Amino acid sequence: MTNISFTPIGMVHTPFKTRDDGAPIQPSRAKGAKGTVTIREDLVDGLADLDGFSHITLIFHFHLSQDYELKVIPYLDTVRRGVFATRAPRRPNQIGLSVVRLTKIEGNVLYIENVDILDGTPLLDIKPFVPGFVEPDEDVRKGWLEKALEKDGRGK
Amino acid sequence: MTNISFTPIGMVHTPFKTRDDGAPIQPSRAKGAKGTVTIREDLVDGLADLDGFSHITLIFHFHLSQDYELKVIPYLDTVRRGVFATRAPRRPNQIGLSVVRLTKIEGNVLYIENVDILDGTPLLDIKPFVPGFVEPDEDVRKGWLEKALEKDGRGK
Repeated sequence: MTNISFTPIGMVHTPFKTRDDGAPIQPSRAKGAKGTVTIREDLVDGLADLDGFSHITLIFHFHLSQDYELKVIPYLDTVRRGVFATRAPRRPNQIGLSVVRLTKIEGNVLYIENVDILDGTPLLDIKPFVPGFVEPDEDVRKGWLEKALEKDGRGK
Repeated sequence: MTNISFTPIGMVHTPFKTRDDGAPIQPSRAKGAKGTVTIREDLVDGLADLDGFSHITLIFHFHLSQDYELKVIPYLDTVRRGVFATRAPRRPNQIGLSVVRLTKIEGNVLYIENVDILDGTPLLDIKPFVPGFVEPDEDVRKGWLEKALEKDGRGK
């Protein structure tokens, strides 16, 4: 299959300089952490209407991950899991996904909260976040995460 | 900013051959539509533990979109909106995001339901879907979609 090439639309700026710098792995751990996103000047018109959304989905490049493993020990677990059943950065295509709170837009700068992204991360796309719009309104099974979230006090 | 290159991890197969072929635009419109995903043989080990999840997030390439517009008239609306406030395919990086139901895995084939993706779409990544894990447990404002979803009978 042929390669697909993307050019970053902007960059994410956060207090988290490296993985060892206290960067949370999951947004639920990132409550309150603030950051900004700077969007390329030529794309600013594409930000229209975004300020109506309290939350946005950021799709970004795990730029520090060079290779991948097919089995990883995920955050919240002690057992090796298939990488596609996790959000681990070392995946075949190093694509990350986070839902963050959008507090303000000024020109080409988005002010965001609840950020779990490393500083200097290249941003690939932004989509509005609307619960129940792209997500199922059905019962959901959470696989290995079910027990892990319970232990973590976040199970139901 | 430098280009980032990805190689598809597999391909999505659905009944929807072209945009004019009745392909739903939003997963909520795709209730019941069935498809499969074939994963590259060399990546099959990465599918371990995925079958514990009833829903998965597919990240894919809108391969039929060659260019982009910064303002688009989205599905469910009649007004031009900034492309980043929509899920329109003609975006600067043509990345699509769908949550689908996973019903079965056989070897390198995933059987999925509630699919809104065109046949032959290159798949870039799979992540487990867990509500409340990457999404906010706070009040959510839905921008221009708020009124559109109400009209569509899906508002709250």
